[in-house]
Amino acid sequence: MITSTSNPQVKQLIQLQKKAKERNAQGVFVVEGPKMALEVPDRQLVQTYVSERFYEKNPAFFPADRSVVVLSDRVFESVSDTRTPQGVLCVIRQYHYKLEDLLGRSPEGTAGEPLLIALENLQDPGNLGTIVRTAEGAGVTGILLSPDCVDLYNPKVIRSTMGAVYRMPFYYTEDFGRELRVLKHKGVRLFAAHLEGSIPYDEETYCGPSGFLIGNESQGLTEETAALADARIRIPMCGQVESLNAAVAASVLMYEASRQRRRRMDR
Amino acid sequence: MITSTSNPQVKQLIQLQKKAKERNAQGVFVVEGPKMALEVPDRQLVQTYVSERFYEKNPAFFPADRSVVVLSDRVFESVSDTRTPQGVLCVIRQYHYKLEDLLGRSPEGTAGEPLLIALENLQDPGNLGTIVRTAEGAGVTGILLSPDCVDLYNPKVIRSTMGAVYRMPFYYTEDFGRELRVLKHKGVRLFAAHLEGSIPYDEETYCGPSGFLIGNESQGLTEETAALADARIRIPMCGQVESLNAAVAASVLMYEASRQRRRRMDR
Repeated sequence: MITSTSNPQVKQLIQLQKKAKERNAQGVFVVEGPKMALEVPDRQLVQTYVSERFYEKNPAFFPADRSVVVLSDRVFESVSDTRTPQGVLCVIRQYHYKLEDLLGRSPEGTAGEPLLIALENLQDPGNLGTIVRTAEGAGVTGILLSPDCVDLYNPKVIRSTMGAVYRMPFYYTEDFGRELRVLKHKGVRLFAAHLEGSIPYDEETYCGPSGFLIGNESQGLTEETAALADARIRIPMCGQVESLNAAVAASVLMYEASRQRRRRMDR
Repeated sequence: MITSTSNPQVKQLIQLQKKAKERNAQGVFVVEGPKMALEVPDRQLVQTYVSERFYEKNPAFFPADRSVVVLSDRVFESVSDTRTPQGVLCVIRQYHYKLEDLLGRSPEGTAGEPLLIALENLQDPGNLGTIVRTAEGAGVTGILLSPDCVDLYNPKVIRSTMGAVYRMPFYYTEDFGRELRVLKHKGVRLFAAHLEGSIPYDEETYCGPSGFLIGNESQGLTEETAALADARIRIPMCGQVESLNAAVAASVLMYEASRQRRRRMDR
């Protein structure tokens, strides 16, 4: 059992929780909580850590062939990113998807056409995690991220994905505009979520290869990016609401696509 | 200018930020930020506070007839609920809606029928604030809350509403089941958002008086509450997603109702 916060493994864990640079240098990230820890795909797992208390209460929580490192409760608290640590965390390998992977094999329940979300300069970790989670639910095939988006391996993002990070292909591009053009060239129709969009979102059809462009929480999409879209769509708003939360807007759009695709399959 | 954190007004502000009990005893709550402060309805406003730096930079930010109390920057930081205070906060009067108010006069853009959200034991402040914000956008007429929901006047909730708190009627009931029965008696059809719902949400119609029941983030609705619904609806999910974020689920449902109501008006 590790009982000192000056242990090198412990110091490294703290760095991995705090710094994207450290995560990228080592090609790993950290997931917390029993459920996330159980779901880690075998090929991704590097190491599992548990608190002394968790280990005593749940000695047979993991399969017998999975080795765990036990940390004293005090040491575990120092490496956890949460206020009330659940006593389990894992270091796991980062994913390396290519742009092609975002076009997807058809996930169960969709009509099989690519359905992408492209995020420009999204900053809030909770929003990104929630989008990844909803995307899996709505049958999205992949997520493209501009280089200035928040790090998807940030512990708060990972927590909000509720495990969807293990399954949803994503790709950070160095050149957002270039990749969007590549997608268009491949036949993906791009729809910019825009406050001044001329078309209500529910009057377009998303049954063909489609991608939604979602912008920064306060500034929205840059004009440069919006100009690449085939159409600018808006979500109608009553009252004096000026905009919706970015994750909510993305979710409304993804589920409209999902709804249309399910309807088409019914016919 | 107030320069001491032991000033009685300052001590009171700190209590108001932290404690629901104190807010309720005084019948007030706190909003932060220039935009929220400008939008406060006159009849609700009790007092406006600004930081020294904000006051120097924006001496004419508020109309001349609005009195402001200036706090030194250090004192302002001690009363702010945010890490990077924007230098403006207001104490404003709480709202006192009745159940009737939730049935709404028709907000602009809806078909005029009541559209309610009823929340049971919702715990996350960000989720509640986001639901209030989206609700206004989707044309919801009111929000019913069970007594064990998070306090809507919690500073994090208020921040996430982005001003919708000034306009969306809401009502905390002592007896959630009783009020739901009252709503049914008034002709409101209740739909429980339920993971085991028998009907996909987009196969029901919400053009008549409708209410969505949304449960706690991890437990969902209690069986007792779900049993009061006229129908249990589910949001279809692809992949291995077990549930959606509560604010996302509520938003998808609210915008499906909004979509159907706009379609009906078009005819």
